[in-house]
Amino acid sequence: MAFWKSLFSSSDTVAPPRTYDGEVGVSGGQPRIFFSTDREIDLYELEELCDAVGWSRRPLRKVKKAIQFSFLVTTMWQQRGNSRRLIGFARATSDHAFNATIWDVVVHPEFQSQGLGKAMMKYMLKKLRSEDISNITLFADPHVVDFYQRMGFLADPEGIKGMFWYPD
Amino acid sequence: MAFWKSLFSSSDTVAPPRTYDGEVGVSGGQPRIFFSTDREIDLYELEELCDAVGWSRRPLRKVKKAIQFSFLVTTMWQQRGNSRRLIGFARATSDHAFNATIWDVVVHPEFQSQGLGKAMMKYMLKKLRSEDISNITLFADPHVVDFYQRMGFLADPEGIKGMFWYPD
Repeated sequence: MAFWKSLFSSSDTVAPPRTYDGEVGVSGGQPRIFFSTDREIDLYELEELCDAVGWSRRPLRKVKKAIQFSFLVTTMWQQRGNSRRLIGFARATSDHAFNATIWDVVVHPEFQSQGLGKAMMKYMLKKLRSEDISNITLFADPHVVDFYQRMGFLADPEGIKGMFWYPD
Repeated sequence: MAFWKSLFSSSDTVAPPRTYDGEVGVSGGQPRIFFSTDREIDLYELEELCDAVGWSRRPLRKVKKAIQFSFLVTTMWQQRGNSRRLIGFARATSDHAFNATIWDVVVHPEFQSQGLGKAMMKYMLKKLRSEDISNITLFADPHVVDFYQRMGFLADPEGIKGMFWYPD
């Protein structure tokens, strides 16, 4: 039920990467990739995805809360027949008015370097823009700064610095 | 009503800057400074405060929404007798679990350079920590990077870059 709900209510299908052209559905027996903003996510499946990229485990209770209170949650799925596999995730916090900050962007290693991370980010940016959020931000680890720059993100624009509080 | 509500339910009083020692109330006829997390803010008074530091005006409808959907809103007030004046403001977005991002930190020019901005930020950090938020972030304009560094914020820790999306 959750699957079909996500498929028809708050998801968008895309063709496989080579023919990706936005959010156009494709039919046929081929595996397909689709995005969703549905928050009914199996937390263990999400943990598995995060394990696959080597992230430290976090308490599922807190992950559940973070998903609940994020402004936007985006998932990326591979569908084969009736089964689907979680292959990407990202979320954004926001004040619902001016600012959004994107966190926890992850694409399963088997699906990296195929333009899918970029497609997922584009999907997310489009959703945020459609909500009239003008200031879209993130904190990028050094090895992904280039990736985000290619997507139109600027590091330290006009000298603005991202800062993190480290308690003594 | 809103005033007393804020004074007794979700506010903390502080002594004037010279004797500031946390969130200890002071009595007597002296003007005093206090902090609050009450969201019943006169939007015109807030606009006046932001005007005083030269910020661009923003639609009050959106400011209202941003306040509503911020995780934490902090105001700083000067109280003289029965009247109070808004002299500082800051707010944070959050996923209520891991991350918070602080936005719109403003102290009225007449009250700057007295340690009040620092006191307001400390108040805010304490509130965020009490909610078990471990990752507290912000984006600092170049001229306030030093201010935040003195408060324990690090710029670009481990090469992490703050990035902003600039649509083509």
